[in-house]
Amino acid sequence: MTTYGAATAVTPLAAGRYGVRLAEEYSFGEAVNGGYLLGVLLRAAVAESSHAHPLTTAASFLRPAQPGPAEVLVEQRKTGRTAATARVSLVQDGRPVVDAMVTTGTLDPDREPAYQGEPPAMPPLEVCRPSGADQSGFVAQVDMRFDPAVMGWLDGEPSGKPEMRAYFRLASGEDPDPFVLALALDALIPVVANTGNVGWSPTVDLTWHLRALPAPGWLTVVGAGRLLRDGWHDEDVEVWDSAGNLVAQSRQLARTARTRK
Amino acid sequence: MTTYGAATAVTPLAAGRYGVRLAEEYSFGEAVNGGYLLGVLLRAAVAESSHAHPLTTAASFLRPAQPGPAEVLVEQRKTGRTAATARVSLVQDGRPVVDAMVTTGTLDPDREPAYQGEPPAMPPLEVCRPSGADQSGFVAQVDMRFDPAVMGWLDGEPSGKPEMRAYFRLASGEDPDPFVLALALDALIPVVANTGNVGWSPTVDLTWHLRALPAPGWLTVVGAGRLLRDGWHDEDVEVWDSAGNLVAQSRQLARTARTRK
Repeated sequence: MTTYGAATAVTPLAAGRYGVRLAEEYSFGEAVNGGYLLGVLLRAAVAESSHAHPLTTAASFLRPAQPGPAEVLVEQRKTGRTAATARVSLVQDGRPVVDAMVTTGTLDPDREPAYQGEPPAMPPLEVCRPSGADQSGFVAQVDMRFDPAVMGWLDGEPSGKPEMRAYFRLASGEDPDPFVLALALDALIPVVANTGNVGWSPTVDLTWHLRALPAPGWLTVVGAGRLLRDGWHDEDVEVWDSAGNLVAQSRQLARTARTRK
Repeated sequence: MTTYGAATAVTPLAAGRYGVRLAEEYSFGEAVNGGYLLGVLLRAAVAESSHAHPLTTAASFLRPAQPGPAEVLVEQRKTGRTAATARVSLVQDGRPVVDAMVTTGTLDPDREPAYQGEPPAMPPLEVCRPSGADQSGFVAQVDMRFDPAVMGWLDGEPSGKPEMRAYFRLASGEDPDPFVLALALDALIPVVANTGNVGWSPTVDLTWHLRALPAPGWLTVVGAGRLLRDGWHDEDVEVWDSAGNLVAQSRQLARTARTRK
């Protein structure tokens, strides 16, 4: 098994230019997983920065990526003591696949929250539902346990609200870091499965914020949407760590799957 | 009085290049208002697109802008039937001030929400608190009425939660459009005033989504944060229109004001 760390590794080719081999293991159907692409892109962004952590990633998913060689281009736009901002592009076959703005900074692991909202209510891990056996590609790389309350859609009984919740860890046993969080926050089944919209819901853009460095162990990944309208929906995801801290927040805009179940 | 429409107007200079004069009226202290800068930038992005509406704007605020001449550069990265994505930069004195990824599309005004979350609870307009008289710059261009429950911080009694809510309209009487929404969603007093952090909280990045075309009349602008940690906080804003529909969503990451009141 290839570790996530190895599968996202980038090789410097020139100033602001990195090579990568997109791993078949992180594909699903025709395309490489979007969270994994962000992990790759962020490895190059952090390698190019004097700061240690990817605080903000605002990404547009322009085209599907295929397993195989690709490059990441990093162009600094502002460098500062507190933060630095770069334009970062994942390019394959000469065309941009993911374009992003990335702000890096360095979080202090010893700072406690000055204010933190309520953590999500999740049932114990033991009663949660594995995403399924006999899997390949991306799904085999992660171990996810879904809250049964949001899995009724599998039996034709969606909850009626755009929501999805699961525990998450890498199947390899690697502990979470900021690059793993990028994978975790785009790993859920789309929230619109619970409004009966089952199928392919392509992400158009996704912005996420790293808010703290995650503790080892399981992550809790909680998704919800506010509006389905005109073929578009939003999906907000919070990632909480095993120490009970909010470590990442994301929002994406996606096309809503047309098939209603 | 200069209308917001006139103050955000851009003039085509060449392919993908627009000129603008940043209006003194939209400044506050040393810098031009960030929401107004987004309005300007989005006018150029939409002028350059075959689509009518700015669906997604992911912006990094790199440096303060000054009133006076500036340019907007638009580089298409993907053009599609449903949506198109461009890199857009507001440049002043040869340096990028705001870098953004903008996805344009065309919303259908006749489509109703297939799902919409609960609207915010706001007291009637009559009991809300004007942002103050005797104002100049940006503050004089807008008419905002704040929920008294989130204004205790003015008397040294913050609510203790990062929150802020107000009714919003342009002082000129212009009705809201997508460019006005860009102004509205960054117009609130920072939510951290209610955790006692009063002062300058510079926005590092802001992503917003246009979800529907706003009805004429007052907007309701509701801000909340989830985490203050390590000198950073998030601020989520929803904008609802007078017809009771969610029309825009934003999230920003900002440096938290150091002064505690």
